[in-house]
Amino acid sequence: MKLKTLFLLINLAKRGAIGREIMVTLRELAKELNVSPQTVLRWLDELEELGYVSRKYSKRGTSVQIKDEGMKLLETLYEELSSALYRGIIIGEVVSGIGEGAYYVQQYAPLIREYLGFDPYPGTLNVKVIFPKTIFDALCNARPIIIPGFVKDGRTFGDVRAYRVRIDGIEGAIVIPSRTIHPPKIAEIIAPVNLRKTLNLKDGDRIRIEAL
Amino acid sequence: MKLKTLFLLINLAKRGAIGREIMVTLRELAKELNVSPQTVLRWLDELEELGYVSRKYSKRGTSVQIKDEGMKLLETLYEELSSALYRGIIIGEVVSGIGEGAYYVQQYAPLIREYLGFDPYPGTLNVKVIFPKTIFDALCNARPIIIPGFVKDGRTFGDVRAYRVRIDGIEGAIVIPSRTIHPPKIAEIIAPVNLRKTLNLKDGDRIRIEAL
Repeated sequence: MKLKTLFLLINLAKRGAIGREIMVTLRELAKELNVSPQTVLRWLDELEELGYVSRKYSKRGTSVQIKDEGMKLLETLYEELSSALYRGIIIGEVVSGIGEGAYYVQQYAPLIREYLGFDPYPGTLNVKVIFPKTIFDALCNARPIIIPGFVKDGRTFGDVRAYRVRIDGIEGAIVIPSRTIHPPKIAEIIAPVNLRKTLNLKDGDRIRIEAL
Repeated sequence: MKLKTLFLLINLAKRGAIGREIMVTLRELAKELNVSPQTVLRWLDELEELGYVSRKYSKRGTSVQIKDEGMKLLETLYEELSSALYRGIIIGEVVSGIGEGAYYVQQYAPLIREYLGFDPYPGTLNVKVIFPKTIFDALCNARPIIIPGFVKDGRTFGDVRAYRVRIDGIEGAIVIPSRTIHPPKIAEIIAPVNLRKTLNLKDGDRIRIEAL
């Protein structure tokens, strides 16, 4: 099977041929894939022969559905690529926070000690994520430690997800409030030491964060 | 280019040939890819001709590095697959729960009404996820509605993430306790109606869930 045939299979998946049949025309597919309708037909034949798709013909036209084997191929490939490209490595740029981090680290300090096993330096290192697109992409496969929320002086502090990381040999954690919905563009990192000072970092410096 | 040649490129990425050269032997690669060393050599030639990798020979052996064009191919493919596979479609099989769902739905009912806008049928439809591997994969890009936890009769009920979904035209929500770390293999679905009855479902039936 050629790579181009794979792109036809991906195109069918994008059109929604997952778990149901969709109507297709050779002309439409040909146009999108930039080849002739004859070529699309040949690729469809191949995908059917390999057991990746099923086709049905009716008066209304041709309908196609991706079979389990086809889904398995796409998923395998996705996983292979994912583990090749996104292996918990985050590349980012050091930025300045607004100083709020210190307050929160102090409030959670006893729980950080209990759940992560270290006394946090009262402050966070803020890192603007450059690669991958979002922190969530990089941490998709990492297992968070959930630091439970609490109430203190009538104020509610929510659950926090902590992901153990290593930066230049120093271990710490990226902390994300559990109620965060939008993937943060800034990673907030806590550690037993002042990371900025210990690693001699200044705003704009590029760092490599490794999820553990 | 054949799909198998792509798998060689992915294998090189996994070995760390990104942004640096790595030493390789044909024998090693052949063993991992389950082909002959001659075949690996042919694939490497092809990858080099296409401008995806560069090779160097020295006394110590052959070193390979993936070039920018090769990285671009892998990243493009990853993004195409990602957008084709994880568009909030879940394929699953109806299974029987242990009846616990009803109790929890009743406890959260007033909040479900407030946050999701419907009176839930007191019970959940349990669906064993077949595709993708985990619910989290499918819902990675979906935005959850967070139903806040509460305390009732001295018992704590945690935050719940609800993802609006549609099944065969009926709207409902997949509910996942916020503290869940391991991706659940069973999706629990609530709706204003008894889904099993309304959609005439029995254990083993395959359904298609669409995140909204």
